[in-house]
Amino acid sequence: MERIPILRMGSFLLVTIQVDMHDRLAMTLQEDLTRKITETGARGVMIDISALEIVDSFIGRMMSHISSMARILDATTVVVGMQPAVAITLVELGLSLKGVHTALSVEKGVRYLEQSATSRGGGRINGRRSR
Amino acid sequence: MERIPILRMGSFLLVTIQVDMHDRLAMTLQEDLTRKITETGARGVMIDISALEIVDSFIGRMMSHISSMARILDATTVVVGMQPAVAITLVELGLSLKGVHTALSVEKGVRYLEQSATSRGGGRINGRRSR
Repeated sequence: MERIPILRMGSFLLVTIQVDMHDRLAMTLQEDLTRKITETGARGVMIDISALEIVDSFIGRMMSHISSMARILDATTVVVGMQPAVAITLVELGLSLKGVHTALSVEKGVRYLEQSATSRGGGRINGRRSR
Repeated sequence: MERIPILRMGSFLLVTIQVDMHDRLAMTLQEDLTRKITETGARGVMIDISALEIVDSFIGRMMSHISSMARILDATTVVVGMQPAVAITLVELGLSLKGVHTALSVEKGVRYLEQSATSRGGGRINGRRSR
């Protein structure tokens, strides 16, 4: 079965999207990714879309969904490598990629995730407040 | 035009192969990769094949070619994430992946490349001997 590989790099996960996404593939990716976050305790997810020349509302929504799911599992998501034409199309389509952070390159994405992990603190339970 | 993205991670490059390779795509990848190595001065190349369920002689040869080209440009190549079934097929096909190093995961691949870069020394001209 077709799957998009999820690579572990330290405390982050990297997903490179190269193929046309369809419903089932997107579902599988979301399932694989959430499972992998819990398995590895990853603090961040990078989605590389440098291969995509077109980002439609379906992929836009998928990225928002992944970002929201990851956030619940205490991981930050950053989309890296967006082509200029894709940014133009997204704005023209009125897609704001709500809640999705972006970075120009993987290296900048890693830096963003590291800062984000540091500012959230080291523990996975720092979201809890004592009463 | 279809391209396989090459991601820069520090002094290494990462290529994730997810799609069926055909002649032109393989040629483009080799060109892009050699150009990127010279542009970035990368010391290592990781080729992730965890998405591949089949590696035929064509892909095997492509990996050997990339590895040889990278070596001339003073970069080490490591193939990561090979599925067990692929290893079995390779041996059955009599493909030995000559000159190609392998590692089970990206993290192990990075460790191998780091050790390899250290043992070769920091400079890009360490291959030259003084007379």
